Amino acid sequence: KLPHNNGMNGNGVHHVSVRAHVSVNPAKLKSHRQRWNVRPSEMSKKTLNPIRAIVDGMKLTPNPEKPMIALSIGDPTVFGNLPTDDTVLQAMKEAIDSHKYNGYAPSVGYQKSREAVSNFYSCPEAPLEGKDVILTSGCSQAIELAISVLCNPGDNILVPRPGFSLYKTLAVSMGIQVKHYNLLPEKSWEIDLQHLESLIDDKTACLIVNNPSNPCGSVFTKDHQHKILAVASRNCIPILVDEIYGDMVFPGCDFQPLAPLSSDVPILSCGGLAKRWLVPGWRMGWILIHDRNDIFGTGIREGLIKLSQRILGPCTVVQGALESILNDTPPEFYQGTISFLKSNSEICFSELSTVPGLNPVMPTGAMYIMVGIEMEHFPDFQNDVEFTERLVTEQSVFCLPATAFEYPNFFRIVVTVPEEMMIEACIRIREFCARHYRPRSQDSHELDQ
Amino acid sequence: KLPHNNGMNGNGVHHVSVRAHVSVNPAKLKSHRQRWNVRPSEMSKKTLNPIRAIVDGMKLTPNPEKPMIALSIGDPTVFGNLPTDDTVLQAMKEAIDSHKYNGYAPSVGYQKSREAVSNFYSCPEAPLEGKDVILTSGCSQAIELAISVLCNPGDNILVPRPGFSLYKTLAVSMGIQVKHYNLLPEKSWEIDLQHLESLIDDKTACLIVNNPSNPCGSVFTKDHQHKILAVASRNCIPILVDEIYGDMVFPGCDFQPLAPLSSDVPILSCGGLAKRWLVPGWRMGWILIHDRNDIFGTGIREGLIKLSQRILGPCTVVQGALESILNDTPPEFYQGTISFLKSNSEICFSELSTVPGLNPVMPTGAMYIMVGIEMEHFPDFQNDVEFTERLVTEQSVFCLPATAFEYPNFFRIVVTVPEEMMIEACIRIREFCARHYRPRSQDSHELDQ
Repeated sequence: KLPHNNGMNGNGVHHVSVRAHVSVNPAKLKSHRQRWNVRPSEMSKKTLNPIRAIVDGMKLTPNPEKPMIALSIGDPTVFGNLPTDDTVLQAMKEAIDSHKYNGYAPSVGYQKSREAVSNFYSCPEAPLEGKDVILTSGCSQAIELAISVLCNPGDNILVPRPGFSLYKTLAVSMGIQVKHYNLLPEKSWEIDLQHLESLIDDKTACLIVNNPSNPCGSVFTKDHQHKILAVASRNCIPILVDEIYGDMVFPGCDFQPLAPLSSDVPILSCGGLAKRWLVPGWRMGWILIHDRNDIFGTGIREGLIKLSQRILGPCTVVQGALESILNDTPPEFYQGTISFLKSNSEICFSELSTVPGLNPVMPTGAMYIMVGIEMEHFPDFQNDVEFTERLVTEQSVFCLPATAFEYPNFFRIVVTVPEEMMIEACIRIREFCARHYRPRSQDSHELDQ
Repeated sequence: KLPHNNGMNGNGVHHVSVRAHVSVNPAKLKSHRQRWNVRPSEMSKKTLNPIRAIVDGMKLTPNPEKPMIALSIGDPTVFGNLPTDDTVLQAMKEAIDSHKYNGYAPSVGYQKSREAVSNFYSCPEAPLEGKDVILTSGCSQAIELAISVLCNPGDNILVPRPGFSLYKTLAVSMGIQVKHYNLLPEKSWEIDLQHLESLIDDKTACLIVNNPSNPCGSVFTKDHQHKILAVASRNCIPILVDEIYGDMVFPGCDFQPLAPLSSDVPILSCGGLAKRWLVPGWRMGWILIHDRNDIFGTGIREGLIKLSQRILGPCTVVQGALESILNDTPPEFYQGTISFLKSNSEICFSELSTVPGLNPVMPTGAMYIMVGIEMEHFPDFQNDVEFTERLVTEQSVFCLPATAFEYPNFFRIVVTVPEEMMIEACIRIREFCARHYRPRSQDSHELDQ
């Protein structure tokens, strides 16, 4: 009595249609495996996290006489000194109590939540509507979707050096080639625009810009961003701008989002709650689609929607709280975070800039300082990895070697730690450097004269 | 005074090393694009959601005289009649108030939360520890990671027909071939084991089993699962079992997880909070790694960890609440859900099994009923898509045509709607069928005799 299925119950149709034109020995094809041989996929093997690879390879045995100070973790919440605002927590509890945010949201997010984001970031030069926002599981997924929709295997993307390692991790796993363009420490980490442009070829699918920068703590001026846009415009390259540290800039400096500065370059701006609202674990990110010249058209938008259906967006409770988080968090909260970060940065910078052999670069935003090591003055160490490894062994201070950001001979300091810890860490770093610093023979020679 | 970068500031090293052996005309390579040409990636174009494709193609204009009843949405929360338990909401609020779950968790989840899951699912025949659990952004991401780690492009996977469409959506987007094995409605949707085994070849990387089943609402016996495992064992094929509806089985029927029944077949069991705890929007899923014979070894485990680092796991607030959700939710909550689903299923089944031309298959779990359409008795319609489309036009009742599950001539009913709605929907379906049912000429002939 059960209905027939119009031939769908026979051999797998997909199987047949795909195999049809291939001449194979069916006996061989069907032969059963004789033994277990389950291997991880190529993609999983190509998903390389350089930070993990480097840190896991380091001998990190702290000096038992000194308590450990970790200046390595880009998580502002670990020390408890930078709590999120009560408004943010209250918004979550109200979302839970409403009983409205337990079911599935659309895979790109609730329309109301998308509109909350578009209202928050819309400006006359770069107006946004709900449809221009894709909510994602953290800024990481925003970046993953943006790269996924713009690039095919064999394409290449341009990423900053030094730069956040996730861009490369994702791209390489997808078979996308990574080309690093240089940032210039002597110019507050501005992009070497000539170098950037020299890397562009017919296979360049996307330029990734990160502003404010991890690991540099730099913030691009409006003028510099105009020049970046000019390169993209001349070469018709869309931009993925990672603005997760947007608005986290020190007083006296202005954060200028990239999109309002261009009317022709199509831009996917990735952001989220993680840093500014100090809740990185909540995994609430977004992509803002800026395409006033209709270059992305419907293709890229539909592509992003399709890709979002793979894992169905971020937690609905956070989505339900989003409108209130964005609109009701008091300005004092943001200001408090920023003044703390500035003050800690200044302490760290002024302490370390008088340490012979070190060259910190003063940041203007985000939560990091990059410190150059004059390796020639530290003959005890081959490189920044050995330098930072021994800093743990002797002083129980851990900073990430900037090799993790493709930038040897620097290390990165996270400035979110409590002030006392920052001061103590700087004292220990000074002690460490004093112990290992050697004047160069040439310098000694000069002194002899 | 800034340190040199050991040649890292020159041309992109990756660029040079990759291009080195390819003979190309550099002038051509570097030529600037003359115009914008941004197209969505092949992967995004290959990410096809058949449910969306079919539903978007349907003319869904309800009868204005009858309020719409949607029996199409696999979300138990939409009608408000199946709220989650207060314990679950309370656990979330406590996690928020603790201020402990705002920072990054490890990408595979907090150890404590992983242990809560392993304790909940561990049993003597299939013991689990925290290290055997990967927390994911919903069961969708669990399935994505499991397929990603087991399969390479060009491999094939075996998926049930009828079956949940996400398996195919994900696989096809990754260049993995999909082979459908048949479920047998006349045997309560057991797997056609001979057909299953006939599909296996040297490129078969994984067998996907879904139990209890979406869209069938079927629950496999222990005996049947032993036979499935025997096929996998004989052919050395690992299993991805989607057990998101685990324990959602009607009284009198027993849910038997797959892994405890085998000591040799390596199994990735995917699950999550979505269905049993009625919070699908929260995106809390997991992979349980069962590998008592050490066939996955460290490779698959490390692969999963690497892949998890792409987007860094599920929302930390839900992770923080997980232990209490799993341990403190009262048994009455689960029982209440299940008796409701059973009662609604019985109403629907008994109503529709007396409708000429329809053949519902009684479920024993999950939240769906599949209903066969004897298309030869409904000459007004070409197929299940037209049938369900017209059911909306005339009766304002929407059921998903099972073509969306690769199974034409059936439709799927979601049984989570309030009882009155279920009854009213069945009345309307009966009316609709009565209007369009035509006895076959052969039947008429038989009657004449």
